[in-house]
Amino acid sequence: MAELLKGAPVADAICARTREKAEALGSRGILPVLAIVRVGENDADVYYERSAMRRCEKSGVGVENVVLPASVSQAELLAKIRALNGDARIHGVLIFRPLPKAISDEAVRAALAPEKDVDGITDGSLAGVFTQSGRGFCPCTAQACAEILDYYGIDCTGRRAVVLGRSLVVGKPVSQLLLARNATVTVCHTRTRDLPRETKRADILIAAAGHAGTVGLEHVAAGQIVIDVGINTDSAGKLCGDVKFDEVEPFVTAITPVPGGVGTVTTSVLVSHVVEAAERQTRS
Amino acid sequence: MAELLKGAPVADAICARTREKAEALGSRGILPVLAIVRVGENDADVYYERSAMRRCEKSGVGVENVVLPASVSQAELLAKIRALNGDARIHGVLIFRPLPKAISDEAVRAALAPEKDVDGITDGSLAGVFTQSGRGFCPCTAQACAEILDYYGIDCTGRRAVVLGRSLVVGKPVSQLLLARNATVTVCHTRTRDLPRETKRADILIAAAGHAGTVGLEHVAAGQIVIDVGINTDSAGKLCGDVKFDEVEPFVTAITPVPGGVGTVTTSVLVSHVVEAAERQTRS
Repeated sequence: MAELLKGAPVADAICARTREKAEALGSRGILPVLAIVRVGENDADVYYERSAMRRCEKSGVGVENVVLPASVSQAELLAKIRALNGDARIHGVLIFRPLPKAISDEAVRAALAPEKDVDGITDGSLAGVFTQSGRGFCPCTAQACAEILDYYGIDCTGRRAVVLGRSLVVGKPVSQLLLARNATVTVCHTRTRDLPRETKRADILIAAAGHAGTVGLEHVAAGQIVIDVGINTDSAGKLCGDVKFDEVEPFVTAITPVPGGVGTVTTSVLVSHVVEAAERQTRS
Repeated sequence: MAELLKGAPVADAICARTREKAEALGSRGILPVLAIVRVGENDADVYYERSAMRRCEKSGVGVENVVLPASVSQAELLAKIRALNGDARIHGVLIFRPLPKAISDEAVRAALAPEKDVDGITDGSLAGVFTQSGRGFCPCTAQACAEILDYYGIDCTGRRAVVLGRSLVVGKPVSQLLLARNATVTVCHTRTRDLPRETKRADILIAAAGHAGTVGLEHVAAGQIVIDVGINTDSAGKLCGDVKFDEVEPFVTAITPVPGGVGTVTTSVLVSHVVEAAERQTRS
């Protein structure tokens, strides 16, 4: 039986720290505010929006919802983003992506002011992750993985971390966070030969492939800590991760559940970024 | 006996491509120009400056030397950089670092226009390396490693690449270039446990630790390709890499010499960036 690395206590700890900081800002007359920009009515977006709003409320952070029709033009969206950049009441901006095909993702990312980029999508934020300079903000899901490791006292120094996936949203940034924690980091992906041989060597395995069932018994070894980033639905329509939990859980030392693991921590990281952004923007 | 992966033919091939592009620009009345900013009289800087100037001349690229006294103030240096940013005759800027202690490295990197950052030191360039977006320019030494692999027809796909070192100048960017070439990439460093065990697993080993003698016989295995990025001097004052060449060379399949390997390619990459920058800046 593995230790279950649940997300809720991690999220609560982040939320408590965030609320404290938000109150300190409040005592200076500053309310940290997140603008959430949603184009269209995608179910996953609406779901995440509600969850982020609840978490903001719990942490003493305001929300401004910007909902645009799926037919919005790129020019209109960019104008809206620029207006939010220039609005001193707004400290952080979350833009749901992917956007409709008529809109250039690159143009949107370039339009957002890096200091308000609490979701880690701008060049400034990604450079900050790569250089570990503290500029910008790390993509929230990648940081959520590191927050779980930190909360449960898992020291990465000198240990082998294997990251499965190389996306800009999780795989690549989490590999940089693990490197900054002095792990020896291997990034695997769809072109990796003999994946089980690589993943079995891990002390810490981060599964961020984005496909249900990618990690099974043949990929793991005793003593491992497994962080499952996947949010997929199985053939029965049930939420599941990238890891075959029932197979893997009995053999490893610790594992995050899905749901209730990384995903639970992500919105609290987002809200902590909003408060951090407000602190940076109002520093005298 | 290993195949010797010499830098000279790689540099010559890059130089030939670059000269062709420079001539095409010339036919449109455009001379690509590199500004080299040197503060003080550091021997290594002066040496690299001469080598870059020779390579520019060979490739049909102009050079403007900016030499400032070691006593220059930060404000004066930043003003000079901004003047170069605004000077349409200058397409690329190389700034020797480390700079005197009184000058903030971060301020200098932030001051340089990303589109003229042919040495890959700005946030824009580093984000471009991380995202593989093609924006900015990769740090030249990291790209030189990849150019050697490409020139000698070494396919990285699915192979295990182990990078020893995690600097922003080599280790981190080269790990991204290898990932983009579909290698399974492991980054090792001073905190890695049992380094020989990691490096022996490599199909392609990039030694970028920055210390003479870091890689010996115990770190390598038959069949490996070794790229030695180190430029150090041994106890006898002789130039040497990070790899104990005499020990390692008989056992591996291919290896770059030092001198005559990666270092030889670096300036040709720099000059290719200047021409690429001129192309981008004058695209109609």
